[in-house]
Amino acid sequence: MTVKISQTAEIQKFFEEASGFGNDNGSPRLKQIILRILNDSAKIIEDLEISDEEFWKAVDYLNRLGGRNEAGLLVAGLGIEHFLDLLQDAKDEQADLTGGTPRTIEGPLYVAGAPICQGEARLDDGSEEGVATVMFLQGQVFDPQGKPLAGATVDLWHANTLGNYSYFDQSQSEYNLRRRIITDAEGRYRARSIVPSGYGCSPDGPTQEVLNQLGRHGQRPAHIHFFISAPGYRHLTTQINLAGDQYLWDDFAYATRDGLVGDIHFVEDAAAARARGIEGRFAELDFDFQLQTAPAPVEQARSKRPRALQ
Amino acid sequence: MTVKISQTAEIQKFFEEASGFGNDNGSPRLKQIILRILNDSAKIIEDLEISDEEFWKAVDYLNRLGGRNEAGLLVAGLGIEHFLDLLQDAKDEQADLTGGTPRTIEGPLYVAGAPICQGEARLDDGSEEGVATVMFLQGQVFDPQGKPLAGATVDLWHANTLGNYSYFDQSQSEYNLRRRIITDAEGRYRARSIVPSGYGCSPDGPTQEVLNQLGRHGQRPAHIHFFISAPGYRHLTTQINLAGDQYLWDDFAYATRDGLVGDIHFVEDAAAARARGIEGRFAELDFDFQLQTAPAPVEQARSKRPRALQ
Repeated sequence: MTVKISQTAEIQKFFEEASGFGNDNGSPRLKQIILRILNDSAKIIEDLEISDEEFWKAVDYLNRLGGRNEAGLLVAGLGIEHFLDLLQDAKDEQADLTGGTPRTIEGPLYVAGAPICQGEARLDDGSEEGVATVMFLQGQVFDPQGKPLAGATVDLWHANTLGNYSYFDQSQSEYNLRRRIITDAEGRYRARSIVPSGYGCSPDGPTQEVLNQLGRHGQRPAHIHFFISAPGYRHLTTQINLAGDQYLWDDFAYATRDGLVGDIHFVEDAAAARARGIEGRFAELDFDFQLQTAPAPVEQARSKRPRALQ
Repeated sequence: MTVKISQTAEIQKFFEEASGFGNDNGSPRLKQIILRILNDSAKIIEDLEISDEEFWKAVDYLNRLGGRNEAGLLVAGLGIEHFLDLLQDAKDEQADLTGGTPRTIEGPLYVAGAPICQGEARLDDGSEEGVATVMFLQGQVFDPQGKPLAGATVDLWHANTLGNYSYFDQSQSEYNLRRRIITDAEGRYRARSIVPSGYGCSPDGPTQEVLNQLGRHGQRPAHIHFFISAPGYRHLTTQINLAGDQYLWDDFAYATRDGLVGDIHFVEDAAAARARGIEGRFAELDFDFQLQTAPAPVEQARSKRPRALQ
């Protein structure tokens, strides 16, 4: 028979003590959260009869996960980050706050402080010329009524041809493939960059280790991340995932959503390339965004989660 | 009104997919555990209305916790490790497996492979002479009937006068304050060492960061860790916490238990010191252990949790 003690008065008192309910210092909110986590952890240990070996392997795993800075990758891979989006969608629906471009996960690889450019920008530093396919990305940002939004900030970032992100990949130049573009009078942004590759979890990392044991891969389709913001409008965190990628609808991080598929076109026409000032095959991708009116001033800015360089 | 979606069919299906229930590869046990953790995490997020900022601070915390290798310290400080002892006690009671020296937490600082000595050992490398108080520790290991157990292994480890442990504190010599002593024909072990200091969490570490927010300190009383084992008997993980320490019954890791208080005596007698071959004040500590008969062969060995040097 399974032995359970976690709901006894003695253990409840112990968990309250451990959560700091016996003193008046610290954070009442964190005490409440920790007490809940202790209770739920104890119930999991009891219900699933977690062995000592399993428990301590999990503790060791947490050390290795943090040691590789992969906690953000794991919560994406286990779908918790996507769940947060679905929960916010449901809250929005209840608040009658719908419409506009769908949100999707931020992922753990944003870096604050990218260079600001007016209307257009080149994102790549040219270091992959000859290897990468040049990509021309453009679109407009609209308000809820479909009016172009001038002066909106399109803060975008994506991987290189190896699926790596600058800053986290120190072999790339500073802010490579990261820019903030301010939309012009027509709400338009234009970017020259390179076609990104999909992202894969490190094969020897702790996130892939768990995915392997779940029988799952750790691949993402090629994609481009966006923060879109403008005064008076609700901050939008989203990404476009590129049509044609084998992982488009089999994304380990569950970020692909209806309305967020980027219909990328590859152009083989030499004259069109010359007209663009380049040579050889290139790609075109048009994508527009529509923002919601901010229901409260705080909603104009992205959440205050910890980020690289803040 | 609180919006909840985690128990809808759609989200349940999503969590099953994320946990790998859609494929036949990997570990069915881990899939079961991950699905439970996803469900419980989602309910916590919904019930406590965890904000984006709180969620991502927790993710960042996990990275920092693992980055400092403190997951084992946190589970001790939050009382989960002590809970595991209490749960095992309850299971033992139900199985009528009682008696002998109480178990208590191992903590995260064991290092396998300490030198083996017959009957007696000196644990300290002499590097703290003049600062440390010499301690003479001895006792007997008994079987359930009170018969001395010859050839039992007393595997003990403790901190230095700064509260630091060799291996984790690389400034100490290899295996300083760590030995395995094989009991003599009378079941006796004898150790010369130094009186340890209590242990305190790193003030700038992630464990203390949480304890601060819970209004709690991160101090342990001075203590000595033991693994006691002998063929045919149940492996015992325990520690003795030293009488007189201000944190004896206010241990942040909740390891002190009735029956595990070490009644240390300090001797100021110069003649007694000379008889021991030393000079100055020293300490004496006698502590006996009683093992249980192993209910199954696997119980003779310590659990297979990951440990330093295995």
